[in-house]
Amino acid sequence: MIYTYLGPAGTFTEAALLQVPEARDSERIPAANVNAALELVRTGEADAAMVPIENSVEGGVSTTLDAIATGEPLQIMREALVTISFVLAVRSNIDTIDQIRSVATHGHAWAQCRGWAESNMPNAEFIPASSTAAGALGLLEDETSHDAAICSPLVAEERGLKVLRTSIEDNAGAVTRFVLVARPGPIPAPTGVDKSTVILPLSEDRPGALMDILEQFVVRGVNLSRIESRPTGEGMGKYFFSVDVDGHLAQERVADALSGLHRVCPNLRFLGSYPAAEGLSSSVDAHNSDAAFSKAQDWVSGLTARLATS
Amino acid sequence: MIYTYLGPAGTFTEAALLQVPEARDSERIPAANVNAALELVRTGEADAAMVPIENSVEGGVSTTLDAIATGEPLQIMREALVTISFVLAVRSNIDTIDQIRSVATHGHAWAQCRGWAESNMPNAEFIPASSTAAGALGLLEDETSHDAAICSPLVAEERGLKVLRTSIEDNAGAVTRFVLVARPGPIPAPTGVDKSTVILPLSEDRPGALMDILEQFVVRGVNLSRIESRPTGEGMGKYFFSVDVDGHLAQERVADALSGLHRVCPNLRFLGSYPAAEGLSSSVDAHNSDAAFSKAQDWVSGLTARLATS
Amino acid sequence: MIYTYLGPAGTFTEAALLQVPEARDSERIPAANVNAALELVRTGEADAAMVPIENSVEGGVSTTLDAIATGEPLQIMREALVTISFVLAVRSNIDTIDQIRSVATHGHAWAQCRGWAESNMPNAEFIPASSTAAGALGLLEDETSHDAAICSPLVAEERGLKVLRTSIEDNAGAVTRFVLVARPGPIPAPTGVDKSTVILPLSEDRPGALMDILEQFVVRGVNLSRIESRPTGEGMGKYFFSVDVDGHLAQERVADALSGLHRVCPNLRFLGSYPAAEGLSSSVDAHNSDAAFSKAQDWVSGLTARLATS
Amino acid sequence: MIYTYLGPAGTFTEAALLQVPEARDSERIPAANVNAALELVRTGEADAAMVPIENSVEGGVSTTLDAIATGEPLQIMREALVTISFVLAVRSNIDTIDQIRSVATHGHAWAQCRGWAESNMPNAEFIPASSTAAGALGLLEDETSHDAAICSPLVAEERGLKVLRTSIEDNAGAVTRFVLVARPGPIPAPTGVDKSTVILPLSEDRPGALMDILEQFVVRGVNLSRIESRPTGEGMGKYFFSVDVDGHLAQERVADALSGLHRVCPNLRFLGSYPAAEGLSSSVDAHNSDAAFSKAQDWVSGLTARLATS
Repeated sequence: MIYTYLGPAGTFTEAALLQVPEARDSERIPAANVNAALELVRTGEADAAMVPIENSVEGGVSTTLDAIATGEPLQIMREALVTISFVLAVRSNIDTIDQIRSVATHGHAWAQCRGWAESNMPNAEFIPASSTAAGALGLLEDETSHDAAICSPLVAEERGLKVLRTSIEDNAGAVTRFVLVARPGPIPAPTGVDKSTVILPLSEDRPGALMDILEQFVVRGVNLSRIESRPTGEGMGKYFFSVDVDGHLAQERVADALSGLHRVCPNLRFLGSYPAAEGLSSSVDAHNSDAAFSKAQDWVSGLTARLATS
Repeated sequence: MIYTYLGPAGTFTEAALLQVPEARDSERIPAANVNAALELVRTGEADAAMVPIENSVEGGVSTTLDAIATGEPLQIMREALVTISFVLAVRSNIDTIDQIRSVATHGHAWAQCRGWAESNMPNAEFIPASSTAAGALGLLEDETSHDAAICSPLVAEERGLKVLRTSIEDNAGAVTRFVLVARPGPIPAPTGVDKSTVILPLSEDRPGALMDILEQFVVRGVNLSRIESRPTGEGMGKYFFSVDVDGHLAQERVADALSGLHRVCPNLRFLGSYPAAEGLSSSVDAHNSDAAFSKAQDWVSGLTARLATS
Repeated sequence: MIYTYLGPAGTFTEAALLQVPEARDSERIPAANVNAALELVRTGEADAAMVPIENSVEGGVSTTLDAIATGEPLQIMREALVTISFVLAVRSNIDTIDQIRSVATHGHAWAQCRGWAESNMPNAEFIPASSTAAGALGLLEDETSHDAAICSPLVAEERGLKVLRTSIEDNAGAVTRFVLVARPGPIPAPTGVDKSTVILPLSEDRPGALMDILEQFVVRGVNLSRIESRPTGEGMGKYFFSVDVDGHLAQERVADALSGLHRVCPNLRFLGSYPAAEGLSSSVDAHNSDAAFSKAQDWVSGLTARLATS
Repeated sequence: MIYTYLGPAGTFTEAALLQVPEARDSERIPAANVNAALELVRTGEADAAMVPIENSVEGGVSTTLDAIATGEPLQIMREALVTISFVLAVRSNIDTIDQIRSVATHGHAWAQCRGWAESNMPNAEFIPASSTAAGALGLLEDETSHDAAICSPLVAEERGLKVLRTSIEDNAGAVTRFVLVARPGPIPAPTGVDKSTVILPLSEDRPGALMDILEQFVVRGVNLSRIESRPTGEGMGKYFFSVDVDGHLAQERVADALSGLHRVCPNLRFLGSYPAAEGLSSSVDAHNSDAAFSKAQDWVSGLTARLATS
């Protein structure tokens, strides 16, 4: 197995990938961006890609949401949660925060530490970096002009960077959710605590179109744990929804909801059923259990067996 | 084939039965009441019973609705519509309406002519009869005290009764719907213009319980052409619903709605799919067509085929 | 105050009227039928009429449901529950059930004792009477041909009739609900345990029309304790719904639901808010309380106060 | 009036601001980022800020969505649409695309031209810039290392930059929607073609919670033209929804929906009603018109006037 991930090495995405036992001793290729990582999978150069899909503070990762919603079909095999915490690393000649005139980091990291930065180093200029690791490694180079970087504790430790402050994120406990994406193949067997992801383009722009979609879930008691709207790119007001539900395709209420969704939304895309990284919040009513579906189907089959042959 | 019907002979129910081609030359047993007719079917003494189920003015026929909703299962094989019109028949010695002191008829007929009677013969006393035919035939007997009867044109003509007025019903164009009921057996093949009848006990007394049921229809675009609430007899506030829908069990949206209903309402009872006597008012959206269901099912089957064997 | 009721004296309806404290010492006029009783109220000859509206076994009383749904507006002032129990009264020369060849009673009473009658006196003919009291009183007359009557314990006791059996009803504990109807006037103040009744003609014959109505209740958490469909008389498939809800017009969620219903169903008719005879089964969520409505209204008023005058 | 906007000068945001007639001759302060612009408004240093809220390709602008959803209340006064098109500007010594080794631009611009860039200059490295204008202006400086910039036609023209290619965006016709945000004050009078924006925190994590919100719109026929889910930052699975609806607070159906939403979602935030930049797609059913609401309210008021004083 060859794995790829949103690089460079030492970011939170690699930390997520290292949660996959098989990945620890396999080849791990850092990719320049999410699309590049997914392209390696689509072409077969890698078997699976770990990419971020949602951050508890910043929200959905648009690039990933869009990239797996269109193009050659892909499948989510598993998810991983990583708690996000940042450190302030500095050049070796910097000793206090007051000395910092510029700080480099990725835009997303900056967004998560901006409150702290504006309070503690209001005069420091933000220099956008292509990744937190890139900003951090720049501190080791002579030609780089920035004095500090906001990066992951991992990269600071691995590269022996001088750290002035830890846990500088504005929201302690922020979590990023990553998904391991592969070419479509076998769907992992249900573990009892599973999720499924589906892409639902809104076919019509009319009152109630979203309701029609949601009703297909509600009428079978399927809980939505995530819903994200994204533009299709075909013009303002044209959306698709990226939705996670509690439950597995192997469960009748999920399969039945998918069947209903296919009717009202024929261009939907099923992205997979896989173990949930955290426990699920919802319970299933007796009348939405597999047993209830099975009995109902048996009953209807008994009726249709009586249909006269015309 | 032996047929039974709500007697006596000469009522609107026999007129409904005579719409069934096979019944014209078969044995036709008049029954004393709806339950007696259905009992003849349940015991096998008759093959089918024609009974009234709904009148466009008086509403549902409770006895029939209740009798087919409980007890040994029965099946509706077809329906028949009869336009209801009444005549005022009198004893031979009566020449004008003013002379009439008492008028006999069945309570339902009285209800449908009461406006006319109160305007045109306000002093005539209503004498309840066990059927319109019984009231009419009483005019021919010496010992009967009533002067007039409200009855069907058919019985008046067949028995040569003296008729003072025709079409005395308050609502011209009133129609009664009858159903031909048999022991469960083959379900007639769809004709393209069909109905299905289902009995839905409301399992819980809570806000939204009826909504849960209706949603199962709405989410599949199944139109309700009749809905009637009836007490279960287990106490005030305990209901079942007797429902007619446009469509046939052989159509996927109907079968799928039945499957969904079985889950939220496991004690439901399917009473049959059969040709509709009149045209249906509703059209079917493309996404609720058999083709849409079939494609959706194929798509889900394609997904479930990929489930890993655990 | 002058009261009228569905007579004759000695029926369950008079028992219901006697539950009204003010009625015990007032004039009480028995009316020949429900319409006659309501007409006395409409013309001002009586101030209020007690009429049956629903039986826990037989269901809705169509005549009453229809009569208060149309014509000159009326208002329900209160409701009363009466437990229904029947006795078998006989002529003085009858000593055993075997001797009974004919039994007179009202059709509704017969419906409620039919099972017992068919088991215990299978050969006795049913003679329809205009009321249970009329059938019972016939036993005291020479010219009446019937041997027995099914009637209320009250009439049997008051008239000293010979009673062979008591509690012969098929469903022990059957209850009839009566309503006291007056010309529209002040609406009784809420007691905390109230009901409201509303008539809802289904304006369109399309999938979802009934859903649109029910949603107006559900979206405000208003519980339906009774729903009854009745034909409008304008043709098969044209219905109105007679609905009881838990709650009082003085409660915001009820008033708001009525406002919403008026939009989708402009010909609706409000029949009153009045104390419930039994406790209510439903509780009210915090977000549907008067306080929640009041806060919401205040919030919106604060916004609309900011509207620029154009 | 003092205006601020997401700077620097020459970006699409200034183009949006210049659509506001009053802004052309007023002071226009470029702000370093969206939060800085909004802070100038909140503190009173500026009267209004123009900020991007949604791009037809990239989707919602998270920073703006989050910034106006929390903190000191703000109000949307109007919206503006700008068609987004990019040019490839180069240093004066570059003559062909092949010579370009690095290209600077803002991450969002890069996202919108990435396809073109990967096809046409696959070897050019992407250098993130704090804005498209900053990247463009860097071409004029000696110390900057990048060879090219992706920027707006406006900035290229104003600064006399050398342009190798125009319209290099992947999706022709991409549009960004901007909103003009002020401190809360008078709400603009309705024009007949208006929008309203509301922030709806999902108070409970359960099946149907989103449905409860949507029902409040659907039951009054209020169309959603935009729905965007955003994390509240309180943990994975905690969302608020940013919603645009067709219609104005001055219209009853919108005011009534807001009232209903306040009950199920008491922490909602109303961000304003304002003229829609484009025509609305939805029409309003008669039963959701102001006239229907007004008649319904009059009818209920007539009823409540009859409430007895207890």
